[in-house]
Amino acid sequence: MEDLFIIKIGGETINNPETLKICLKTIAASGRKIILVHGGGKKVTELAQKLQIPQQMVEGRRITSAETLELCTMVYAGLINKNIVAGLSSKNRLAIGISGADLNCIVSKKRDVSVINYGFVGDIVKVDEMVFDDFISKNIFPVVNSISISEESELLNTNADVMAAEIAKAMSATYKTHLIYCFEKNGVLKDIADENSVIEEISKADFTQMKETKQIADGMIPKLQTAFRALYHGVEEARILKSDALQSYFNQKKPGTNIILH
Amino acid sequence: MEDLFIIKIGGETINNPETLKICLKTIAASGRKIILVHGGGKKVTELAQKLQIPQQMVEGRRITSAETLELCTMVYAGLINKNIVAGLSSKNRLAIGISGADLNCIVSKKRDVSVINYGFVGDIVKVDEMVFDDFISKNIFPVVNSISISEESELLNTNADVMAAEIAKAMSATYKTHLIYCFEKNGVLKDIADENSVIEEISKADFTQMKETKQIADGMIPKLQTAFRALYHGVEEARILKSDALQSYFNQKKPGTNIILH
Repeated sequence: MEDLFIIKIGGETINNPETLKICLKTIAASGRKIILVHGGGKKVTELAQKLQIPQQMVEGRRITSAETLELCTMVYAGLINKNIVAGLSSKNRLAIGISGADLNCIVSKKRDVSVINYGFVGDIVKVDEMVFDDFISKNIFPVVNSISISEESELLNTNADVMAAEIAKAMSATYKTHLIYCFEKNGVLKDIADENSVIEEISKADFTQMKETKQIADGMIPKLQTAFRALYHGVEEARILKSDALQSYFNQKKPGTNIILH
Repeated sequence: MEDLFIIKIGGETINNPETLKICLKTIAASGRKIILVHGGGKKVTELAQKLQIPQQMVEGRRITSAETLELCTMVYAGLINKNIVAGLSSKNRLAIGISGADLNCIVSKKRDVSVINYGFVGDIVKVDEMVFDDFISKNIFPVVNSISISEESELLNTNADVMAAEIAKAMSATYKTHLIYCFEKNGVLKDIADENSVIEEISKADFTQMKETKQIADGMIPKLQTAFRALYHGVEEARILKSDALQSYFNQKKPGTNIILH
Protein backbone atom coordinates (compact mmCIF):
# COMPACT_ATOMS: atom_id res chain seq x y z
CA MET A 1 0.00 0.00 0.00
CA GLU A 2 1.10 3.52 -0.73
CA ASP A 3 1.94 5.93 2.10
CA LEU A 4 -0.43 8.79 2.87
CA PHE A 5 0.41 11.53 5.35
CA ILE A 6 -2.36 13.30 7.22
CA ILE A 7 -0.72 16.38 8.69
CA LYS A 8 -2.58 18.53 11.18
CA ILE A 9 -1.38 22.07 11.77
CA GLY A 10 -2.79 24.51 14.29
CA GLY A 11 -1.98 27.82 15.92
CA GLU A 12 1.68 26.86 16.44
CA THR A 13 2.14 26.92 12.65
CA ILE A 14 -0.63 29.24 11.42
CA ASN A 15 0.06 32.14 13.79
CA ASN A 16 3.59 32.58 12.45
CA PRO A 17 3.67 33.41 8.71
CA GLU A 18 7.33 32.38 8.39
CA THR A 19 6.74 28.99 10.07
CA LEU A 20 3.68 28.40 7.87
CA LYS A 21 5.66 29.26 4.74
CA ILE A 22 8.42 26.78 5.61
CA CYS A 23 5.84 24.11 6.45
CA LEU A 24 4.05 24.55 3.11
CA LYS A 25 7.36 24.59 1.24
CA THR A 26 8.31 21.26 2.85
CA ILE A 27 4.93 19.76 2.02
CA ALA A 28 5.08 21.00 -1.57
CA ALA A 29 8.59 19.64 -2.08
CA SER A 30 8.04 16.32 -0.30
CA GLY A 31 6.78 14.36 -3.29
CA ARG A 32 4.40 12.60 -0.89
CA LYS A 33 0.66 12.18 -0.88
CA ILE A 34 -0.60 14.51 1.84
CA ILE A 35 -3.89 15.65 3.32
CA LEU A 36 -3.46 18.84 5.32
CA VAL A 37 -5.90 19.49 8.17
CA HIS A 38 -5.92 22.83 9.93
CA GLY A 39 -7.45 24.52 12.93
CA GLY A 40 -7.82 28.21 13.36
CA GLY A 41 -5.01 29.62 15.41
CA LYS A 42 -5.78 32.67 17.46
CA LYS A 43 -7.64 34.59 14.74
CA VAL A 44 -11.14 33.57 15.89
CA THR A 45 -10.36 34.71 19.44
CA GLU A 46 -8.93 38.02 18.18
CA LEU A 47 -11.90 38.65 15.92
CA ALA A 48 -14.36 37.74 18.69
CA GLN A 49 -12.63 40.23 20.98
CA LYS A 50 -12.83 43.01 18.40
CA LEU A 51 -16.49 42.23 17.72
CA GLN A 52 -17.18 41.85 21.45
CA ILE A 53 -18.58 38.36 21.07
CA PRO A 54 -17.82 36.63 24.39
CA GLN A 55 -15.93 33.34 24.13
CA GLN A 56 -15.97 30.47 26.55
CA MET A 57 -13.69 27.44 26.55
CA VAL A 58 -14.49 24.22 28.43
CA GLU A 59 -11.72 21.63 28.62
CA GLY A 60 -9.95 23.27 25.70
CA ARG A 61 -13.05 23.18 23.49
CA ARG A 62 -14.79 26.32 22.32
CA ILE A 63 -18.45 26.76 23.26
CA THR A 64 -19.86 27.63 19.86
CA SER A 65 -22.85 29.96 19.73
CA ALA A 66 -24.45 30.78 16.37
CA GLU A 67 -22.38 33.97 16.24
CA THR A 68 -19.15 32.14 17.08
CA LEU A 69 -19.91 29.52 14.43
CA GLU A 70 -20.09 32.38 11.91
CA LEU A 71 -16.63 33.53 13.02
CA CYS A 72 -15.22 30.00 12.85
CA THR A 73 -16.66 29.46 9.38
CA MET A 74 -15.22 32.77 8.20
CA VAL A 75 -11.78 32.22 9.67
CA TYR A 76 -11.28 28.47 9.17
CA ALA A 77 -13.09 27.88 5.86
CA GLY A 78 -12.35 31.32 4.42
CA LEU A 79 -9.26 33.19 5.56
CA ILE A 80 -6.92 30.45 6.73
CA ASN A 81 -8.02 27.81 4.26
CA LYS A 82 -7.63 29.97 1.16
CA ASN A 83 -4.30 31.37 2.34
CA ILE A 84 -2.94 27.84 2.70
CA VAL A 85 -4.26 26.90 -0.74
CA ALA A 86 -2.60 30.02 -2.20
CA GLY A 87 0.62 29.19 -0.32
CA LEU A 88 0.77 25.74 -1.93
CA SER A 89 -0.10 27.28 -5.29
CA SER A 90 2.92 29.57 -4.93
CA LYS A 91 5.02 26.39 -4.77
CA ASN A 92 3.38 25.14 -7.98
CA ARG A 93 1.17 22.64 -6.23
CA LEU A 94 -2.53 22.21 -6.84
CA ALA A 95 -4.58 22.26 -3.67
CA ILE A 96 -8.27 22.28 -2.94
CA GLY A 97 -9.60 23.79 0.24
CA ILE A 98 -12.58 21.94 1.63
CA SER A 99 -14.73 21.82 4.70
CA GLY A 100 -16.67 18.76 5.75
CA ALA A 101 -19.74 20.35 4.15
CA ASP A 102 -18.17 20.26 0.70
CA LEU A 103 -19.33 17.11 -1.05
CA ASN A 104 -20.69 16.14 2.38
CA CYS A 105 -17.28 14.59 2.96
CA ILE A 106 -17.20 14.82 6.78
CA VAL A 107 -20.52 14.30 8.49
CA SER A 108 -20.84 14.95 12.20
CA LYS A 109 -23.44 14.79 14.94
CA LYS A 110 -24.21 17.73 17.18
CA ARG A 111 -22.75 16.99 20.58
CA ASP A 112 -25.21 15.84 23.21
CA VAL A 113 -26.25 18.89 25.24
CA SER A 114 -27.24 17.04 28.40
CA VAL A 115 -23.87 17.44 30.17
CA ILE A 116 -22.37 20.60 28.70
CA ASN A 117 -24.07 22.54 25.92
CA TYR A 118 -21.22 23.15 23.49
CA GLY A 119 -23.62 24.68 20.97
CA PHE A 120 -22.73 24.19 17.32
CA VAL A 121 -20.04 21.60 17.91
CA GLY A 122 -19.99 18.29 16.09
CA ASP A 123 -18.45 14.88 16.62
CA ILE A 124 -17.59 13.08 13.40
CA VAL A 125 -19.70 10.11 12.38
CA LYS A 126 -18.62 9.58 8.76
CA VAL A 127 -15.75 10.43 6.44
CA ASP A 128 -16.26 9.87 2.72
CA GLU A 129 -12.85 8.50 1.80
CA MET A 130 -13.73 8.48 -1.91
CA VAL A 131 -13.74 12.27 -1.98
CA PHE A 132 -10.21 12.41 -0.60
CA ASP A 133 -8.95 9.53 -2.71
CA ASP A 134 -10.26 11.21 -5.83
CA PHE A 135 -8.16 14.33 -5.19
CA ILE A 136 -5.07 12.52 -3.90
CA SER A 137 -4.92 10.20 -6.88
CA LYS A 138 -4.67 13.30 -9.09
CA ASN A 139 -1.81 14.68 -6.97
CA ILE A 140 -4.04 17.38 -5.54
CA PHE A 141 -3.51 18.33 -1.90
CA PRO A 142 -6.78 18.46 0.04
CA VAL A 143 -6.60 21.26 2.62
CA VAL A 144 -9.29 20.49 5.15
CA ASN A 145 -10.65 22.99 7.65
CA SER A 146 -12.40 21.98 10.83
CA ILE A 147 -15.99 22.80 9.87
CA SER A 148 -18.11 19.69 9.35
CA ILE A 149 -21.77 19.17 8.46
CA SER A 150 -24.52 17.37 10.36
CA GLU A 151 -27.03 14.99 8.85
CA GLU A 152 -29.47 17.89 9.15
CA SER A 153 -27.07 19.96 7.02
CA GLU A 154 -26.00 22.29 9.81
CA LEU A 155 -22.43 23.54 9.77
CA LEU A 156 -20.66 22.44 12.97
CA ASN A 157 -17.38 23.38 14.59
CA THR A 158 -15.18 20.30 14.93
CA ASN A 159 -11.94 19.52 16.71
CA ALA A 160 -9.14 19.54 14.13
CA ASP A 161 -7.08 16.83 15.90
CA VAL A 162 -10.06 14.49 15.80
CA MET A 163 -10.82 15.42 12.22
CA ALA A 164 -7.29 14.52 11.14
CA ALA A 165 -7.52 11.21 13.03
CA GLU A 166 -10.90 10.34 11.51
CA ILE A 167 -9.62 11.07 8.01
CA ALA A 168 -6.53 8.91 8.71
CA LYS A 169 -8.74 6.06 9.96
CA ALA A 170 -11.01 6.25 6.93
CA MET A 171 -8.08 6.31 4.50
CA SER A 172 -6.27 3.41 6.14
CA ALA A 173 -8.31 0.91 4.13
CA THR A 174 -6.55 2.07 0.98
CA TYR A 175 -3.31 3.64 2.20
CA LYS A 176 -0.62 3.16 4.81
CA THR A 177 -1.65 6.23 6.79
CA HIS A 178 0.64 8.38 8.91
CA LEU A 179 -1.05 10.78 11.32
CA ILE A 180 1.24 13.70 12.10
CA TYR A 181 0.28 16.28 14.70
CA CYS A 182 2.29 19.47 14.51
CA PHE A 183 2.81 20.87 17.96
CA GLU A 184 4.35 23.95 19.59
CA LYS A 185 7.09 21.92 21.26
CA ASN A 186 9.54 19.45 19.72
CA GLY A 187 7.32 16.60 20.85
CA VAL A 188 5.99 15.35 24.18
CA LEU A 189 8.58 16.54 26.71
CA LYS A 190 9.84 14.83 29.86
CA ASP A 191 10.53 18.25 31.30
CA ILE A 192 8.25 20.93 29.89
CA ALA A 193 11.00 23.56 30.39
CA ASP A 194 13.53 21.60 28.36
CA GLU A 195 12.91 21.39 24.57
CA ASN A 196 15.61 18.71 24.37
CA SER A 197 13.80 16.30 26.67
CA VAL A 198 11.60 14.86 23.92
CA ILE A 199 10.16 11.45 24.75
CA GLU A 200 10.88 9.33 21.68
CA GLU A 201 8.08 6.85 22.14
CA ILE A 202 4.91 6.64 24.22
CA SER A 203 2.94 3.42 24.44
CA LYS A 204 -0.59 3.05 25.76
CA ALA A 205 0.88 1.66 29.02
CA ASP A 206 3.31 4.61 29.32
CA PHE A 207 0.38 6.95 28.75
CA THR A 208 -1.69 5.44 31.57
CA GLN A 209 1.23 5.78 33.93
CA MET A 210 2.09 9.33 32.83
CA LYS A 211 -1.48 10.43 33.41
CA GLU A 212 -1.33 9.05 36.96
CA THR A 213 1.94 10.82 37.73
CA LYS A 214 0.53 13.96 36.05
CA GLN A 215 3.53 14.05 33.73
CA ILE A 216 1.05 14.75 30.97
CA ALA A 217 -2.04 16.85 31.43
CA ASP A 218 -4.42 19.32 29.80
CA GLY A 219 -4.64 19.39 26.01
CA MET A 220 -2.08 16.63 25.54
CA ILE A 221 -4.40 14.00 27.06
CA PRO A 222 -7.19 14.16 24.42
CA LYS A 223 -4.54 14.51 21.67
CA LEU A 224 -2.86 11.28 22.73
CA GLN A 225 -6.18 9.51 23.25
CA THR A 226 -7.18 10.46 19.73
CA ALA A 227 -3.86 9.16 18.40
CA PHE A 228 -4.27 5.82 20.22
CA ARG A 229 -7.77 5.43 18.83
CA ALA A 230 -6.48 6.07 15.32
CA LEU A 231 -3.73 3.44 15.74
CA TYR A 232 -6.27 1.00 17.10
CA HIS A 233 -8.35 1.53 13.95
CA GLY A 234 -5.62 0.75 11.45
CA VAL A 235 -3.55 3.91 11.21
CA GLU A 236 0.08 2.91 10.65
CA GLU A 237 1.87 5.68 12.52
CA ALA A 238 0.98 8.53 14.85
CA ARG A 239 3.58 11.15 15.68
CA ILE A 240 3.75 14.50 17.44
CA LEU A 241 6.41 16.94 16.27
CA LYS A 242 7.19 20.57 15.62
CA SER A 243 6.29 21.60 12.07
CA ASP A 244 9.92 22.73 11.57
CA ALA A 245 10.82 19.05 11.81
CA LEU A 246 8.63 17.94 8.89
CA GLN A 247 11.59 18.10 6.50
CA SER A 248 13.68 15.86 8.70
CA TYR A 249 10.69 13.52 9.09
CA PHE A 250 10.36 13.16 5.30
CA ASN A 251 14.10 12.46 5.22
CA GLN A 252 13.47 9.28 7.23
CA LYS A 253 14.64 10.79 10.49
CA LYS A 254 12.35 10.22 13.42
CA PRO A 255 11.77 13.61 15.06
CA GLY A 256 9.26 14.20 17.83
CA THR A 257 7.31 11.61 19.76
CA ASN A 258 6.14 8.36 18.25
CA ILE A 259 2.82 7.13 19.67
CA ILE A 260 2.50 3.35 19.71
CA LEU A 261 -0.08 0.92 21.03
CA HIS A 262 2.36 -1.54 22.65
CA MET B 1 -24.51 20.14 -26.69
CA GLU B 2 -25.91 19.92 -23.23
CA ASP B 3 -27.23 23.00 -21.43
CA LEU B 4 -25.27 24.50 -18.56
CA PHE B 5 -26.60 27.31 -16.41
CA ILE B 6 -24.21 29.74 -14.75
CA ILE B 7 -26.30 31.53 -12.15
CA LYS B 8 -24.91 34.53 -10.34
CA ILE B 9 -26.53 35.58 -7.08
CA GLY B 10 -25.61 38.61 -5.01
CA GLY B 11 -26.90 40.68 -2.13
CA GLU B 12 -30.47 40.65 -3.49
CA THR B 13 -30.61 36.90 -2.78
CA ILE B 14 -27.99 36.39 -0.06
CA ASN B 15 -29.18 39.13 2.31
CA ASN B 16 -32.61 37.51 2.67
CA PRO B 17 -32.43 33.98 4.15
CA GLU B 18 -35.93 33.11 2.87
CA THR B 19 -35.13 34.23 -0.69
CA LEU B 20 -31.85 32.30 -0.62
CA LYS B 21 -33.64 29.19 0.62
CA ILE B 22 -36.17 29.31 -2.21
CA CYS B 23 -33.41 29.96 -4.74
CA LEU B 24 -31.39 26.94 -3.57
CA LYS B 25 -34.51 24.77 -3.48
CA THR B 26 -35.23 25.68 -7.10
CA ILE B 27 -31.65 24.98 -8.14
CA ALA B 28 -31.60 21.64 -6.29
CA ALA B 29 -34.90 20.54 -7.85
CA SER B 30 -34.14 21.77 -11.36
CA GLY B 31 -32.43 18.65 -12.62
CA ARG B 32 -30.09 20.95 -14.58
CA LYS B 33 -26.35 21.29 -14.67
CA ILE B 34 -25.61 24.49 -12.77
CA ILE B 35 -22.60 26.49 -11.63
CA LEU B 36 -23.53 28.94 -8.90
CA VAL B 37 -21.44 32.10 -8.56
CA HIS B 38 -21.94 34.40 -5.61
CA GLY B 39 -20.88 37.79 -4.37
CA GLY B 40 -20.95 38.87 -0.80
CA GLY B 41 -24.04 40.83 -0.04
CA LYS B 42 -23.79 43.45 2.63
CA LYS B 43 -21.91 41.30 5.17
CA VAL B 44 -18.44 42.64 4.28
CA THR B 45 -19.63 46.22 4.69
CA GLU B 46 -21.29 45.39 8.02
CA LEU B 47 -18.21 43.61 9.31
CA ALA B 48 -15.92 46.42 8.15
CA GLN B 49 -18.09 48.91 10.03
CA LYS B 50 -17.96 46.88 13.23
CA LEU B 51 -14.19 46.46 12.91
CA GLN B 52 -13.79 50.12 11.92
CA ILE B 53 -12.01 49.29 8.70
CA PRO B 54 -12.87 52.17 6.35
CA GLN B 55 -14.38 51.15 3.00
CA GLN B 56 -14.24 53.05 -0.26
CA MET B 57 -16.19 52.30 -3.43
CA VAL B 58 -15.20 53.68 -6.83
CA GLU B 59 -17.69 53.14 -9.67
CA GLY B 60 -19.37 50.38 -7.69
CA ARG B 61 -16.09 48.53 -7.08
CA ARG B 62 -14.60 48.09 -3.65
CA ILE B 63 -11.10 49.46 -3.07
CA THR B 64 -9.51 46.42 -1.47
CA SER B 65 -6.78 47.00 1.10
CA ALA B 66 -4.98 44.02 2.64
CA GLU B 67 -7.36 44.23 5.61
CA THR B 68 -10.43 44.39 3.39
CA LEU B 69 -9.18 41.43 1.36
CA GLU B 70 -9.07 39.46 4.63
CA LEU B 71 -12.71 40.39 5.26
CA CYS B 72 -13.73 39.47 1.71
CA THR B 73 -11.93 36.12 1.93
CA MET B 74 -13.61 35.38 5.26
CA VAL B 75 -17.08 36.37 4.15
CA TYR B 76 -17.15 35.17 0.53
CA ALA B 77 -14.99 32.02 0.70
CA GLY B 78 -15.97 31.14 4.27
CA LEU B 79 -19.32 32.23 5.62
CA ILE B 80 -21.46 32.65 2.53
CA ASN B 81 -19.87 29.91 0.48
CA LYS B 82 -20.21 27.19 3.11
CA ASN B 83 -23.75 28.24 3.99
CA ILE B 84 -24.77 27.86 0.35
CA VAL B 85 -23.05 24.46 0.16
CA ALA B 86 -24.89 23.39 3.34
CA GLY B 87 -28.16 24.75 1.89
CA LEU B 88 -27.81 22.57 -1.20
CA SER B 89 -26.81 19.63 0.98
CA SER B 90 -30.07 20.05 2.90
CA LYS B 91 -31.83 19.44 -0.43
CA ASN B 92 -29.78 16.27 -0.93
CA ARG B 93 -27.48 17.77 -3.51
CA LEU B 94 -23.71 17.50 -3.50
CA ALA B 95 -21.98 20.83 -3.84
CA ILE B 96 -18.39 21.95 -3.63
CA GLY B 97 -17.52 25.46 -2.61
CA ILE B 98 -14.50 26.81 -4.40
CA SER B 99 -12.63 30.03 -4.88
CA GLY B 100 -10.48 30.74 -7.90
CA ALA B 101 -7.46 29.77 -5.78
CA ASP B 102 -8.70 26.20 -5.37
CA LEU B 103 -7.06 24.08 -8.05
CA ASN B 104 -5.92 27.42 -9.50
CA CYS B 105 -9.19 27.37 -11.42
CA ILE B 106 -9.63 31.14 -11.89
CA VAL B 107 -6.44 33.09 -12.42
CA SER B 108 -6.52 36.87 -12.44
CA LYS B 109 -4.18 39.78 -12.85
CA LYS B 110 -3.93 42.56 -10.30
CA ARG B 111 -5.59 45.60 -11.77
CA ASP B 112 -3.27 48.27 -13.16
CA VAL B 113 -2.75 50.87 -10.46
CA SER B 114 -1.82 53.77 -12.76
CA VAL B 115 -5.35 55.23 -12.98
CA ILE B 116 -7.04 54.16 -9.74
CA ASN B 117 -5.32 51.94 -7.19
CA TYR B 118 -8.00 49.37 -6.41
CA GLY B 119 -5.56 47.40 -4.25
CA PHE B 120 -6.06 43.64 -4.13
CA VAL B 121 -8.50 43.51 -7.02
CA GLY B 122 -8.06 41.14 -9.94
CA ASP B 123 -9.27 40.91 -13.50
CA ILE B 124 -9.65 37.37 -14.76
CA VAL B 125 -7.16 36.09 -17.30
CA LYS B 126 -7.85 32.35 -17.28
CA VAL B 127 -10.57 29.91 -16.29
CA ASP B 128 -9.68 26.22 -16.10
CA GLU B 129 -12.83 24.72 -17.57
CA MET B 130 -11.63 21.17 -16.86
CA VAL B 131 -12.00 21.75 -13.12
CA PHE B 132 -15.64 22.75 -13.54
CA ASP B 133 -16.39 20.07 -16.10
CA ASP B 134 -15.01 17.43 -13.78
CA PHE B 135 -17.46 18.38 -11.03
CA ILE B 136 -20.44 19.00 -13.29
CA SER B 137 -20.08 15.66 -15.04
CA LYS B 138 -20.46 13.99 -11.63
CA ASN B 139 -23.63 16.01 -10.91
CA ILE B 140 -21.84 18.11 -8.33
CA PHE B 141 -22.79 21.78 -8.10
CA PRO B 142 -19.74 24.05 -8.03
CA VAL B 143 -20.44 27.04 -5.76
CA VAL B 144 -17.92 29.67 -6.73
CA ASN B 145 -17.07 32.70 -4.62
CA SER B 146 -15.51 35.82 -6.03
CA ILE B 147 -11.95 35.39 -4.74
CA SER B 148 -9.47 34.57 -7.50
CA ILE B 149 -5.72 34.01 -7.54
CA SER B 150 -2.97 35.85 -9.40
CA GLU B 151 -0.09 34.22 -11.24
CA GLU B 152 2.00 35.28 -8.23
CA SER B 153 -0.41 33.29 -6.02
CA GLU B 154 -1.97 36.31 -4.34
CA LEU B 155 -5.64 36.10 -3.43
CA LEU B 156 -7.55 38.86 -5.24
CA ASN B 157 -11.05 40.27 -4.91
CA THR B 158 -12.94 39.85 -8.17
CA ASN B 159 -16.23 41.11 -9.53
CA ALA B 160 -18.77 38.28 -9.29
CA ASP B 161 -20.69 39.35 -12.45
CA VAL B 162 -17.49 39.17 -14.47
CA MET B 163 -16.50 35.89 -12.83
CA ALA B 164 -19.81 34.31 -13.84
CA ALA B 165 -19.41 35.62 -17.41
CA GLU B 166 -15.84 34.34 -17.70
CA ILE B 167 -16.87 30.90 -16.46
CA ALA B 168 -19.75 30.90 -18.95
CA LYS B 169 -17.38 31.86 -21.79
CA ALA B 170 -14.87 29.16 -20.86
CA MET B 171 -17.56 26.49 -20.61
CA SER B 172 -19.19 27.41 -23.92
CA ALA B 173 -16.73 25.23 -25.84
CA THR B 174 -18.32 22.15 -24.27
CA TYR B 175 -21.80 23.25 -23.23
CA LYS B 176 -24.66 25.45 -24.41
CA THR B 177 -24.14 28.03 -21.67
CA HIS B 178 -26.81 30.24 -20.15
CA LEU B 179 -25.61 33.18 -18.09
CA ILE B 180 -28.26 34.20 -15.56
CA TYR B 181 -27.83 37.30 -13.43
CA CYS B 182 -30.13 37.43 -10.43
CA PHE B 183 -31.10 41.01 -9.75
CA GLU B 184 -33.09 42.95 -7.14
CA LYS B 185 -35.75 43.95 -9.69
CA ASN B 186 -37.78 41.74 -12.03
CA GLY B 187 -35.38 42.62 -14.83
CA VAL B 188 -34.23 45.80 -16.54
CA LEU B 189 -37.16 48.18 -16.06
CA LYS B 190 -38.50 50.87 -18.42
CA ASP B 191 -39.66 52.81 -15.38
CA ILE B 192 -37.57 52.12 -12.30
CA ALA B 193 -40.60 52.76 -10.05
CA ASP B 194 -42.73 50.16 -11.84
CA GLU B 195 -41.75 46.49 -11.31
CA ASN B 196 -44.13 45.54 -14.12
CA SER B 197 -42.29 47.58 -16.73
CA VAL B 198 -39.71 44.86 -17.47
CA ILE B 199 -38.01 45.25 -20.83
CA GLU B 200 -38.23 41.80 -22.42
CA GLU B 201 -35.25 42.13 -24.67
CA ILE B 202 -32.28 44.47 -24.98
CA SER B 203 -29.99 44.34 -28.01
CA LYS B 204 -26.60 45.96 -28.31
CA ALA B 205 -28.20 48.77 -30.38
CA ASP B 206 -30.92 49.30 -27.75
CA PHE B 207 -28.21 49.46 -25.11
CA THR B 208 -26.25 52.17 -26.92
CA GLN B 209 -29.41 54.24 -27.27
CA MET B 210 -30.52 53.67 -23.67
CA LYS B 211 -27.15 54.81 -22.40
CA GLU B 212 -27.47 58.03 -24.40
CA THR B 213 -30.96 58.74 -23.09
CA LYS B 214 -29.75 57.79 -19.60
CA GLN B 215 -32.52 55.20 -19.34
CA ILE B 216 -29.88 52.89 -17.91
CA ALA B 217 -27.10 54.03 -15.68
CA ASP B 218 -24.84 53.11 -12.76
CA GLY B 219 -24.28 49.44 -11.99
CA MET B 220 -26.49 48.23 -14.83
CA ILE B 221 -24.06 49.50 -17.48
CA PRO B 222 -21.08 47.24 -16.59
CA LYS B 223 -23.50 44.33 -15.98
CA LEU B 224 -24.92 44.64 -19.50
CA GLN B 225 -21.49 45.20 -21.04
CA THR B 226 -20.27 42.02 -19.37
CA ALA B 227 -23.31 40.14 -20.70
CA PHE B 228 -22.73 41.41 -24.26
CA ARG B 229 -19.09 40.36 -24.09
CA ALA B 230 -20.11 36.88 -22.96
CA LEU B 231 -22.59 36.54 -25.83
CA TYR B 232 -19.96 37.74 -28.27
CA HIS B 233 -17.66 34.96 -27.01
CA GLY B 234 -20.06 32.10 -27.56
CA VAL B 235 -22.41 32.16 -24.57
CA GLU B 236 -25.85 31.07 -25.77
CA GLU B 237 -28.09 33.18 -23.56
CA ALA B 238 -27.71 36.05 -21.10
CA ARG B 239 -30.64 37.03 -18.90
CA ILE B 240 -31.32 39.30 -15.95
CA LEU B 241 -34.11 38.28 -13.58
CA LYS B 242 -35.20 38.19 -9.98
CA SER B 243 -34.09 34.98 -8.26
CA ASP B 244 -37.77 34.31 -7.39
CA ALA B 245 -38.31 33.81 -11.12
CA LEU B 246 -35.75 30.99 -11.48
CA GLN B 247 -38.48 28.37 -11.14
CA SER B 248 -40.51 29.91 -13.93
CA TYR B 249 -37.34 30.21 -16.02
CA PHE B 250 -36.64 26.49 -15.68
CA ASN B 251 -40.27 25.88 -16.67
CA GLN B 252 -39.48 27.37 -20.08
CA LYS B 253 -41.11 30.71 -19.32
CA LYS B 254 -39.03 33.72 -20.17
CA PRO B 255 -38.95 35.95 -17.11
CA GLY B 256 -36.78 39.04 -16.80
CA THR B 257 -34.76 40.68 -19.54
CA ASN B 258 -33.12 38.76 -22.33
CA ILE B 259 -29.83 40.31 -23.50
CA ILE B 260 -29.14 39.76 -27.19
CA LEU B 261 -26.44 40.91 -29.57
CA HIS B 262 -28.75 41.83 -32.49
